[in-house]
Amino acid sequence: MLYIVGLGLSDETDITVKGLEAVKNSERVYLEAYTSILTVGKEKLEEYYGKEVIVADREMVESDSDSILANADSVNVSFLVVGDPYGATTHTDLVIRARELNIPVQVIHNASIMNAVGACGLQLYNFGQTISIVFFTDTWRPDSFYDRIKENKDIGLHTLCLLDIKVKEQSIENLARGRLIYEPPRYMTVNQAVEQLLEIEENRNEGICTPDSLAIGCARIGTDSQKIVAGPLRELVDVDFGGPLHSLVLIGSRMHPMEADFVRAYAANPATFDELVKQQYKF
Amino acid sequence: MLYIVGLGLSDETDITVKGLEAVKNSERVYLEAYTSILTVGKEKLEEYYGKEVIVADREMVESDSDSILANADSVNVSFLVVGDPYGATTHTDLVIRARELNIPVQVIHNASIMNAVGACGLQLYNFGQTISIVFFTDTWRPDSFYDRIKENKDIGLHTLCLLDIKVKEQSIENLARGRLIYEPPRYMTVNQAVEQLLEIEENRNEGICTPDSLAIGCARIGTDSQKIVAGPLRELVDVDFGGPLHSLVLIGSRMHPMEADFVRAYAANPATFDELVKQQYKF
Repeated sequence: MLYIVGLGLSDETDITVKGLEAVKNSERVYLEAYTSILTVGKEKLEEYYGKEVIVADREMVESDSDSILANADSVNVSFLVVGDPYGATTHTDLVIRARELNIPVQVIHNASIMNAVGACGLQLYNFGQTISIVFFTDTWRPDSFYDRIKENKDIGLHTLCLLDIKVKEQSIENLARGRLIYEPPRYMTVNQAVEQLLEIEENRNEGICTPDSLAIGCARIGTDSQKIVAGPLRELVDVDFGGPLHSLVLIGSRMHPMEADFVRAYAANPATFDELVKQQYKF
Repeated sequence: MLYIVGLGLSDETDITVKGLEAVKNSERVYLEAYTSILTVGKEKLEEYYGKEVIVADREMVESDSDSILANADSVNVSFLVVGDPYGATTHTDLVIRARELNIPVQVIHNASIMNAVGACGLQLYNFGQTISIVFFTDTWRPDSFYDRIKENKDIGLHTLCLLDIKVKEQSIENLARGRLIYEPPRYMTVNQAVEQLLEIEENRNEGICTPDSLAIGCARIGTDSQKIVAGPLRELVDVDFGGPLHSLVLIGSRMHPMEADFVRAYAANPATFDELVKQQYKF
C-alpha cells in the first residue's frame, strides 16, 4: 500500500492519528521537501516517528518515482506531504503512476493553506481561483497571474496568492559547470510579492492591485507564531512578517460586512482600513 | 483557552495528534453537529476521548454561545467541528464572540471538503467560488447559485457544489403547534442536486449545466468508502452514490488534459466521457 499522508501546516503533531498509524506501519517513509515546509525538520520527524525519513527532492519525485513505489504492492510505503496530499500537481502524478503499477493508494487528508487561509477572516466560498507568484529575475518577469486576479476581481472574489519557494536551486554558473552546489533556500515574503504586484500594476495600469487595494498578508498560518496583517498594499509592503511561509490574499469587491468585521481585527492601521473599506465597499 | 478543533472528514482517528491533546486537556468538549457529519457518532468519540461530548445544535451555537464559552478564560474548552474550523460562518462568529470576551482561542486545522475535493482529480487552484445547493420545496426553489456557476464558467473554472443538510428540522405542523418533534435528518444526494440543476437549466436556458455538462459526483470523500464518479449530468442523475455526505463538482471549460486524464479513471462510462471531452474541450 502507498500511503500519501498530509502533515498539515505546523509541526510533527499536526499529523492525524490515522496518518501517524500509517507511518508507523510503513517500511519506508519519504518526505516531499520542495513544495512546502513545516516548522520542524526531518530529524524531528524521525525522532517522533521512531524511524528513518528519506527526503525526496523534486528530481526524485518527478523522474524517479518508481524507486519510491518499489515493492509498494507488497509492503507499506508512506509518502509525506506538508499540507494536504492534493495540494501540488506532482503528488497527483504519483497517484497516477501507482495506479498504472496496480499499487493500492490510500490518501490521508490534512489541512492545507487552501482551506486554512479561512483564518484570515474571509469566507472560503468567496475565493476565486488561486494563483502562484514566482520570483522575478532580471530577465523573466512573468505577469500572467495578473489576468487571473482580474478575472476574480471582475466577479468580486478574493484571490489567494501562493508565494514562490526555491529549494535546492543551482546558480547559473554552477549549473553550467555541472557543480552540484545548491543555493540556500528562498521563500518569497509578503513584501516581495506586494512589490512585484505593484510593479505589474504600474505597467498594466488596470486598477487590479493598486497601492490602495486592500489585502491580507499571512505568515505561518496554523502555527503558534501565525501572523495576519490586513491593510492596503502600500502598507503591507513594509510590514515585517517574520520567517516563512508567507501567503497573500487580495480582497475581492464582494467582501461581506461580517468578513470586514473579522478582518478589521488584523488591520495594521484600523483607521486607514475603515476609510478604505468605506470608499471601496460602500458599507 | 477555547480550542476550536477540526475533526477532518471520516472517523475518530482523523483528528490530529495536536487536536486530540487539546481535547484530552479540556474540561468541556462540544461537538458541532449540524453543518456536517463524521462516519461515527458522538458515542464513538466519547469512547475514544474518554470523556463526555456535548452535542451543540444550531440554536446553542448561534443563540447561546456564551454557555459554550463560560469560564473558558480560566479552563480549557474544546469545540469540535467536522472538517476544518473555518468551514462554516457560525464558527467564525464563535471566534469573534470569544475575542470580545477576551478568551484566548487556538484553532487546530484539519482537512475539509474545500481542499480534500482535490481527490476528484481536478486541481484546487482551478476552482472558482464554492456554492451551496439547498433543497427545493414546493414554494421555494431558489436559483441564485446558477449565476455563481455561470460566473465561474465564464472564466473557465470548476465549481464545487456543497449539498444541503437538514438536521433537527421541525415540520410546519409541529412548528405551528409548538411540538418539539424533529424530522429525520436529510442529506442531499448527488442525484437530487443534479435534478435541481437540470430543472434550473431548463428554466434559465443559458447552457450552464445541461444534460451533457461534465461533472464529478463525490461521496464520503476521505473515508474508506469514498465514491467518485465522473460523467455528464444526465448520467450522474442515476448513479447510486450510497450514504451521505455527497458533493458535486461542475467541470470548468479550462480543464487541463492532465486533469482530464486523472478524472477519466472515475468515468461512469469512459467512452461517453472521452467523446464529450473531445467535443467540449478541444483536446
